[in-house]
Amino acid sequence: MRILVIGASGTVGSAVVAALADRHEVVRAGREHGEYRVDITRDDSVEAMFEAVGPVDAIVSTTGSLFFGPLETMRPADFNIGLQDKLLGQVRLALLGQHVLRDGGSITLTTGIVSDEPIRQGANATAVNAAVEGFVRAAAIELSRGVRINAVSPTMLTESQAIYGPFFPGFESVPASRVALAYVRSVEGPQTGRIYRVW
Amino acid sequence: MRILVIGASGTVGSAVVAALADRHEVVRAGREHGEYRVDITRDDSVEAMFEAVGPVDAIVSTTGSLFFGPLETMRPADFNIGLQDKLLGQVRLALLGQHVLRDGGSITLTTGIVSDEPIRQGANATAVNAAVEGFVRAAAIELSRGVRINAVSPTMLTESQAIYGPFFPGFESVPASRVALAYVRSVEGPQTGRIYRVW
Ligand SMILES: NC(=O)c1ccc[n+]([C@@H]2O[C@H](COP(=O)([O-])OP(=O)(O)OC[C@H]3O[C@@H](n4cnc5c(N)ncnc54)[C@H](OP(=O)(O)O)[C@@H]3O)[C@@H](O)[C@H]2O)c1
Ligand SMILES: NC(=O)c1ccc[n+]([C@@H]2O[C@H](COP(=O)([O-])OP(=O)(O)OC[C@H]3O[C@@H](n4cnc5c(N)ncnc54)[C@H](OP(=O)(O)O)[C@@H]3O)[C@@H](O)[C@H]2O)c1
Repeated sequence: MRILVIGASGTVGSAVVAALADRHEVVRAGREHGEYRVDITRDDSVEAMFEAVGPVDAIVSTTGSLFFGPLETMRPADFNIGLQDKLLGQVRLALLGQHVLRDGGSITLTTGIVSDEPIRQGANATAVNAAVEGFVRAAAIELSRGVRINAVSPTMLTESQAIYGPFFPGFESVPASRVALAYVRSVEGPQTGRIYRVW
Repeated sequence: MRILVIGASGTVGSAVVAALADRHEVVRAGREHGEYRVDITRDDSVEAMFEAVGPVDAIVSTTGSLFFGPLETMRPADFNIGLQDKLLGQVRLALLGQHVLRDGGSITLTTGIVSDEPIRQGANATAVNAAVEGFVRAAAIELSRGVRINAVSPTMLTESQAIYGPFFPGFESVPASRVALAYVRSVEGPQTGRIYRVW
C-alpha cells in the first residue's frame, strides 16, 4: 500500500512509520519535517499536499494541538485553539482526503485517553478528542467506495512521560511501538467507525 | 432559584421554561426573543448578558446550530459552523457563566441523540454533540464552589417531527414535556458530569 502519514516526525508518528515502512510505501508529511510540508489548519495547504502526493491507499494523521489550562481562567478563544487545530485540522484531512483515496482505502485519526478519562486542565482535550471520535463514528456510515475511517486513542506514551507525566498521575504509560500496532490494525484490517483504545 | 434559560423561546426551551416557571424565577434569553438578547457566538454579547442579568443559581442552554449535509461534499468551513455555534457557543456560556453562578449553582447544556446514533448528513452534529458531552465530563471535575455541570441529550422531539422526521427514520420521538424533566433533574438534583439521555 501507499500510505501518507501526517505528523510522521512526531513521537507517535515516527513509531507508526517504523511499524508500516517495511511492508508499505510510506510518504511522510509534517509542518517542518518530511517529504511533504503541510499545515493542517489551512485548506489551501492541505489541498496542495494531496495534489502533490497523488492517490494513496491510506491517510494516517498523528498530529494536532490542544489547549491545556485551568477551567477557571479558560477563555473561549483558548478553547477554540484545539477546535481549529486537532479537531478541524484532522477533520480537514478526512474531508479533503476522502477524494484522493483509492477504493477500499482508509483514514486513521488520533485522539487520546482524556476523551474517556478527563484530567485537570484538560477540558479542551476531552472535548476535542470526543469530537474526533464522534466524527469517526458518523463519517464511517457515509464514506463510499469501501473507504474506511477509524481513530486510535492512546494513553500517555512512555516516550512522553517526562513531559506529560505530571498531568497523568497514576496513569500507566504504553510504549510507542505498542500504540503503533493499533494504527497497523486500522490500516490493514477490515473495520470502520472503530476507536482503538491503547491503554 | 433564579434560573437563566438561553434559547427560552425554542421548541426545547419553551418546554423547559414551562417545567421550571412555577417553582422558580426564570429569566429568558435568546437572539430575538426574551427579556435579554444575546448571541452565543460572541464573547462581548454573552458577557453583556451575564453583566445585565446578575447572579443566578442555574444557567440552562437550549440553543446551538449545527451543519447538516452529505459528507462527500462537506467542506471544513461547513464543519466549522457547528464548532463555532452549538459547541463553542455553549462552552462560552459555561466558561463565562461559571463566574456569575452562586455557590452550588449549575450549568445545563444541550446535546442530542446523534452523539450516540449517527445519521446520514450528520457528521458535524455527532462530533459537536460528542464534544459538548466531553466538555461536560471534563468541566465537572474542575468547577469550584459546588458548581455542577450536566448535559441533556434528547432524541427527536415529537413537536419537531414534521421538520426532522426524514432525517431520523424509525426513531421514536419524545414529547418536549418529557425532555424538560431531564433539565429539571439537572437543575434541582445533586449530580454533576452527567449526560441525561432522553429517548
Ligand atoms: N505523546 C503522547 O503521549 C500522546 C498520547 C495520546 C495522544 N497523543 C496525540 O498524538 C498526536 C501526536 O502527538 P505526539 O506526541 O506524537 O506529538 P509531537 O511529537 O509533537 O509530533 C507532532 C507532529 O505533528 C506535526 N505537526 C504539528 N503541527 C502541525 C500542523 N499544523 N500541520 C501539520 N503537521 C503538524 C509535527 O510536524 P513537524 O515535526 O514537521 O513540525 C510532528 O510530526 C497528538 O494529537 C496528541 O494529542 C499523544
Ligand atoms: N428539536 C429537537 O427535536 C431536538 C432534538 C435533540 C436536540 N435538539 C437540540 O436542542 C437545541 C434547541 O433546539 P430547538 O429545536 O429547541 O431549536 P429552536 O426551536 O430553533 O430554538 C432555538 C432557540 O435558540 C435561540 N438562538 C438561536 N441562535 C442563537 C444565538 N446565536 N444566540 C442565542 N440564542 C440563539 C433562539 O432564540 P430566538 O427565538 O430569540 O431567536 C431560540 O430560542 C439545539 O441545540 C438542538 O440541536 C433539538
